[in-house]
Amino acid sequence: MSDQNQFLSAALKAWKTNIDRAGKFFSSLSDEQLLQEVAPGKNRLIYLFGHLTAVHDGMLPLLGLGEKTRPDFDAAFVSNPDKSRSNLPSPQEVKESWKDVNAKLSAGFEKFSPAEWLQRHTAVSEEDFAKDPSRNRYAILLSRTNHVAYHMGQLNLAPK
Amino acid sequence: MSDQNQFLSAALKAWKTNIDRAGKFFSSLSDEQLLQEVAPGKNRLIYLFGHLTAVHDGMLPLLGLGEKTRPDFDAAFVSNPDKSRSNLPSPQEVKESWKDVNAKLSAGFEKFSPAEWLQRHTAVSEEDFAKDPSRNRYAILLSRTNHVAYHMGQLNLAPK
Repeated sequence: MSDQNQFLSAALKAWKTNIDRAGKFFSSLSDEQLLQEVAPGKNRLIYLFGHLTAVHDGMLPLLGLGEKTRPDFDAAFVSNPDKSRSNLPSPQEVKESWKDVNAKLSAGFEKFSPAEWLQRHTAVSEEDFAKDPSRNRYAILLSRTNHVAYHMGQLNLAPK
Repeated sequence: MSDQNQFLSAALKAWKTNIDRAGKFFSSLSDEQLLQEVAPGKNRLIYLFGHLTAVHDGMLPLLGLGEKTRPDFDAAFVSNPDKSRSNLPSPQEVKESWKDVNAKLSAGFEKFSPAEWLQRHTAVSEEDFAKDPSRNRYAILLSRTNHVAYHMGQLNLAPK
């Protein structure tokens, strides 16, 4: 394996580790447990589960891997705070979407060459990317891995 | 810049972003605020501040950059839970150590070549590293960046 691929494979491994950890965490919870708050007055587990799912769904267009599969998750879990809406997708829907979205990402990740990882993500224009080539797909991979870890820290505070 | 260095520079940038965010968070807090818990019955801010500092101090020997500067922080902030010991280093000591340790890491990071980032970290034997070359310094950089993000998620739950 080339040195270059070793940097890339390390980041892909870190992504997978964090996704597997989060998936295992959520799949072990009952619907009732998902309605708990991570701490008094804070987000509920189901909200953070939907939030991570929605953000990962958004990585599909961001990385050029396709359209969002559940654009309705944004209003439910990203652009509005928890407990502000009466109609949320069900725990079962979130569980299915989590698996579906992360499987689509994983399949897309396998197809990117190292050079493709260093191409711009779709939220940056060609002009801006020319000025700052660090705004690439690989940077998204790293920042979204950190984003999972950030919320896992909160999720692990919830009463067991 | 070579493609290889673009992968490396993305991870170094993510590290710096997370360190700067945590440093800004902690430096804005009074000693009294540092004694708050992130959530009822959970770790205090000072404990997590010392914990991150101690873990980063441990990166110095792990990456071959020198000895730990504050080995006493381990008993205070890593190997024993919060509120189990009466004598903790003071907030001022933690603030100073945080700056010192992260400056030492930053200086060390600048000197590593890409090839040196892919060398083994010191917690893995040469024999085990030969079997699994993913146990390198770069993997430590990624996992410790995630570790900061994990605890920042918790720290941001604390009452403002």
